[in-house]
Amino acid sequence: MKTELSRTLGIEHAIFGFTPFPAVAAALTRAGGFGVLGAVRYTAPDDLARDLDWMQEHTDGLPYGLDVVMPAKKVEAAPGGQTLTEADVEAMIPEEHRAFVRATLAKHGVPELPEGEASGWRITGWMEQVARSQLDVAFDYPIKLLANALGSPPPDIVARAHDQGVLVAALAGSARHARHHAEAGIDIVVAQGYEAGGHTGEIASMVLTPEVVDAVSPLPVLAAGGIGSGEQIAAGLALGAQGVWLGSIWLTTTEAELHSRALTAKLLAAGSGDTVRSRALTGKPARQLRTEWTDAWDDPAGPGPLPMPLQGLLVAEAVSRIQRHEVEPLLGTPVGQIVGRMNSERSVQQVVDELTRGFEKAVDRINRIAGRSES
Amino acid sequence: MKTELSRTLGIEHAIFGFTPFPAVAAALTRAGGFGVLGAVRYTAPDDLARDLDWMQEHTDGLPYGLDVVMPAKKVEAAPGGQTLTEADVEAMIPEEHRAFVRATLAKHGVPELPEGEASGWRITGWMEQVARSQLDVAFDYPIKLLANALGSPPPDIVARAHDQGVLVAALAGSARHARHHAEAGIDIVVAQGYEAGGHTGEIASMVLTPEVVDAVSPLPVLAAGGIGSGEQIAAGLALGAQGVWLGSIWLTTTEAELHSRALTAKLLAAGSGDTVRSRALTGKPARQLRTEWTDAWDDPAGPGPLPMPLQGLLVAEAVSRIQRHEVEPLLGTPVGQIVGRMNSERSVQQVVDELTRGFEKAVDRINRIAGRSES
Repeated sequence: MKTELSRTLGIEHAIFGFTPFPAVAAALTRAGGFGVLGAVRYTAPDDLARDLDWMQEHTDGLPYGLDVVMPAKKVEAAPGGQTLTEADVEAMIPEEHRAFVRATLAKHGVPELPEGEASGWRITGWMEQVARSQLDVAFDYPIKLLANALGSPPPDIVARAHDQGVLVAALAGSARHARHHAEAGIDIVVAQGYEAGGHTGEIASMVLTPEVVDAVSPLPVLAAGGIGSGEQIAAGLALGAQGVWLGSIWLTTTEAELHSRALTAKLLAAGSGDTVRSRALTGKPARQLRTEWTDAWDDPAGPGPLPMPLQGLLVAEAVSRIQRHEVEPLLGTPVGQIVGRMNSERSVQQVVDELTRGFEKAVDRINRIAGRSES
Repeated sequence: MKTELSRTLGIEHAIFGFTPFPAVAAALTRAGGFGVLGAVRYTAPDDLARDLDWMQEHTDGLPYGLDVVMPAKKVEAAPGGQTLTEADVEAMIPEEHRAFVRATLAKHGVPELPEGEASGWRITGWMEQVARSQLDVAFDYPIKLLANALGSPPPDIVARAHDQGVLVAALAGSARHARHHAEAGIDIVVAQGYEAGGHTGEIASMVLTPEVVDAVSPLPVLAAGGIGSGEQIAAGLALGAQGVWLGSIWLTTTEAELHSRALTAKLLAAGSGDTVRSRALTGKPARQLRTEWTDAWDDPAGPGPLPMPLQGLLVAEAVSRIQRHEVEPLLGTPVGQIVGRMNSERSVQQVVDELTRGFEKAVDRINRIAGRSES
């Protein structure tokens, strides 16, 4: 499975995997794909440095990347122009919303975090200053790709990446977003369809992928959203992509560190109709497991979610409590519609083997239909 | 582009086209695809007979089909079991909703229909008794396929079709629906993704197609939703479909009889983000152009749409008035997200030529990526 982009990066399969888990990212890179480590959960630069050290030791010199979350619009700039602290942003959250969080947790009897245990689920990485401190660390490592999940990164970051020979990728949910990325000097556009896990727009991959390919050609495009099998990879590549970008499928690999058997069980049991595109987690529409938590926030009778980044700050501790105590009705995670096919735990290598075998079978099939097979 | 199903039907390309226009259906059949005439707009059996006569004369003995709309659940059965008339159903519509229609039309200054001109937009074909009278006509013609847009047709209809050697197809928006169809003896399942025009579920084609293929194998599946180019056909076939089912793309062909230049212009100008999945037209979620009409019905401040078939009866005359007078802000039609690529008027033959050329190019591309091309 070789495209111009996979040749540029020197990888065997044009399969890019986004994951918050270093063990998954490294395993994918070793399996011939391209692992992209999500940095959003690293509040402390030292933690990121430790995991990048580990990645470096476990990728046999093969390429990998880093994914940060820099909002295109700065929300943390105060009117006077000075930088806001997390505390400043916290102060912007209305008491009504805090009360709604407390009431929803109380309704389900969610216990407090154990004494002295910090909230693990943090999204302060969504604030530009945190993302910048992550990048200061990351540029000390031989990363080959820097991806940004929200808009184009600032021009100085793009320039710094290019100076170091790092390709820059950005996610887009529409052809218009993709054109903005191209104008901002981005090297790779990830076309993220409606069916994807996490932040998505409303255009499905079948329509979005070729639109984005046409919009930014000759820039390479990765198809994201709805891809979890070799057949779906073949479809994404038929639509003009130079590779595929998978996130959800790794969540149920044996290398994933979900730290919650209940959540793994929920993912394995969920069908493709068990996700919802909700603002409950971050303030922007993100596809995730539908739970009583998302239902509460999507209920018109409630206060509704706050804009990013307020919602993420508001719910961070609550999400940690729900995860820590595995409160089943509220327990969720960002995941795409392919969750319906995530029905067993496999190693990353096994997943890659199945993806490549499935791709070859799909190519066989399409050749038979096109009348090009020898048989 | 040959699959087992296309061989069974004796067609050159596994491209199925749903259209309300006999000229489009016949042109597609003549171009080597399979035209499926939508019967829902035929209130009078004689009108359908006239158009099927015309189809017969203009299809050179090549195969074509008919699409009816029979709701799986009968809504017109009264508690006592007797059949309800259209007037009985009309009486179930609340005055609040009638007033909302009047107010919305008045706000936009929509004139009445000219004296003596009947409402052209009718959905009485959605009632089983009307669909049955359509079938009484259709079975006198050598149709090769009977498709049902809402659920499986009743068992006696399936049996009658099979007795006459007519294959039966049914649309499904989920693997569960598809399994019901298989159990009901349906021959072909049309997997209709979220991005499709008209009635859709929430699962996108990229995820839905292979789920439905797995659910009903070895029954053949047609991929529908998001397909308007040869690349998208290749994607649908890579996902395991035995053919594709296209509806939207024919709306801007030269053979289409939209009878509204303003609507054609709107379709040609619309982007993939200009559709909405709304209950405004029929009472069930159907993708269509987003207009001030759909906005009014989707507004939480309004009364909201009634269930099928009440909404369709409620808005039928209003839709006719909007179309007759080409009231631009309210003017819409069911159409899928591929409307973004419908940017010029072409003949059906030109569309088919582009589809087949695009398919061949996509196959070339996927073979290069798979390392199977000679060059």
